[in-house]
Amino acid sequence: MTQAAPQQSQAAPKPAQKPISLDALYSLVSNELKQVDDLILARVKHEIPLISDIVRHIIASGGKRIRPALTLISAQLCEFSGERQIALAAAVEFIHTATLLHDDVVDESKLRRGLATANEVFGNKASVLVGDFLLSQAFQFMVADGSLKVLKILSDASAIIAKGEVMQLMTEGEPETSIDNYLEVVGAKTAVLFAAACELGAVLAGREADEARLREFGMDIGIAFQLIDDALDYAADAATIGKNVGDDFREGKITLPVILAYAAGNEEEKTFWKRTLGELEQDDGDLQTAILLLKKHDTIAKTIKMAKDYCTKASDTLLTFPASPARAAMLDLVEFCASRAY
Amino acid sequence: MTQAAPQQSQAAPKPAQKPISLDALYSLVSNELKQVDDLILARVKHEIPLISDIVRHIIASGGKRIRPALTLISAQLCEFSGERQIALAAAVEFIHTATLLHDDVVDESKLRRGLATANEVFGNKASVLVGDFLLSQAFQFMVADGSLKVLKILSDASAIIAKGEVMQLMTEGEPETSIDNYLEVVGAKTAVLFAAACELGAVLAGREADEARLREFGMDIGIAFQLIDDALDYAADAATIGKNVGDDFREGKITLPVILAYAAGNEEEKTFWKRTLGELEQDDGDLQTAILLLKKHDTIAKTIKMAKDYCTKASDTLLTFPASPARAAMLDLVEFCASRAY
Repeated sequence: MTQAAPQQSQAAPKPAQKPISLDALYSLVSNELKQVDDLILARVKHEIPLISDIVRHIIASGGKRIRPALTLISAQLCEFSGERQIALAAAVEFIHTATLLHDDVVDESKLRRGLATANEVFGNKASVLVGDFLLSQAFQFMVADGSLKVLKILSDASAIIAKGEVMQLMTEGEPETSIDNYLEVVGAKTAVLFAAACELGAVLAGREADEARLREFGMDIGIAFQLIDDALDYAADAATIGKNVGDDFREGKITLPVILAYAAGNEEEKTFWKRTLGELEQDDGDLQTAILLLKKHDTIAKTIKMAKDYCTKASDTLLTFPASPARAAMLDLVEFCASRAY
Repeated sequence: MTQAAPQQSQAAPKPAQKPISLDALYSLVSNELKQVDDLILARVKHEIPLISDIVRHIIASGGKRIRPALTLISAQLCEFSGERQIALAAAVEFIHTATLLHDDVVDESKLRRGLATANEVFGNKASVLVGDFLLSQAFQFMVADGSLKVLKILSDASAIIAKGEVMQLMTEGEPETSIDNYLEVVGAKTAVLFAAACELGAVLAGREADEARLREFGMDIGIAFQLIDDALDYAADAATIGKNVGDDFREGKITLPVILAYAAGNEEEKTFWKRTLGELEQDDGDLQTAILLLKKHDTIAKTIKMAKDYCTKASDTLLTFPASPARAAMLDLVEFCASRAY
């Protein structure tokens, strides 16, 4: 994995750039995405109240439904016509939601997208058990679909995600983590589900030749999304995206901006990172110091540069598909991802 | 569900009864059970240390491997000859182990079978995430097996277990819980995996006519096991089975002995149960008071009587199969279950 070269200051927005819209993407998938939400809500409607309350809470929390949208748009890209994509997109969303619930318990997070996390509202016990329930629902959707190929893709993805979560737990508070190790965790925790979500489109359409390409596209866009998230966590305007600025810092998460700053830092800086992230001994002003150190070593810009490289790779892969409304919408998505990080 | 009639005092052991041995069962499945353990350990050997450490810890904690043994002996009962039972028994054990890990986090348990629980040793975060990992491994085993029927049985079982866990969370501290509600939770949390483990034997052997019978046998023996566990939790000699006497009481678990005592209790007794289990306000001596109240209303004996009724039903189901060493070993298991509760 090549490390990105320094570029211009990350603080300066590019005023001339027009905002990228996901309107084309969502207009292509909105009907189907509505069916996905309906299926999810129908699935939990007759369940015990705690389960349906938590699922409603998560759905009300919004989010872009990016993973199920990827399954739906990938199926369109491969000209699939049928109904199976709805339940499989729901399975993808359930796997994601189950991971979120357990993630928030493990991270002791209080906010997600500006709203209280389920563990804050319903308690850790409920989040652990309802996460298990949602994962089991995902598997029931997959089994009902009846394709062993689909089952293999999604069960492998689940296994890699689970392993990525454990790996991340083990690198917690270790700023010496290598870039490769970090990218492996990001690939496992985040990008693998993007990859599986996209690959399903080709599998549904019976287009074996497209499976690897869509999987690769999903991996690249998934890594780019996570890198940008990691950068935005330290960016001053992150409040506008509903995250607490400095969440990762407070939780001792070792993300790329920190890894690069640690590697480039002097002894005093290394001691700072070890104290604040390794031992989680944080005082007032430490977050500001952290942000200054990231600026000093220009590591937010470097992280964004690496994300944009992944975006370029994702676009290049898409351009090997014939032009279509679905392809155009997916190219928008890539641009949107890159543009989140002016 | 009929409630058991009162019977003789539960305190008096039956001195003439010879101890029931599981030797016949384990001699029939020991080779295969060894293969199951080897497969489990091989699966995690190359994993990150935290995962293999936790799995080793759980395997070292012993336990009777009753669920995988049920898959193996049921396959023998149905005269299955092949290798698929090994990986499926491992999947059953992984599902069980994942549930245990999450259970112990939710219950804040410190001991299981006399040894420190994984959450005590490795922390709650690791237990949540490694539980997810093990569940994903179970699904990978099932997908590799390639039978959609097997996948349906085990994914349905997982879904019911997860729902049972949430239901149990909701009845926590509610001594007014009905017997039916309690039996539904026990059926979902415990017996369904016993039922699935047994049913797999018939599915492997292609004996469709035996599936329902083996499933029913598994449900009955599973409920009996849980009822006896619940009774033993308040029995003075429970230390010999590696449980802390009074664990359920301290955790506010509402089990059948308590439900029956609450229903039969006067106002003062109801207030006692609400304070100690509902609000978890427990003082020294409360456990002794609880045990005295259970004795007063003879509810441990009633619980054991109900368990024995399930054992009788399980034996009756088994006796519809032709005589064989496997059937004899399974009948021993039923007797063993009943005999744990002298």
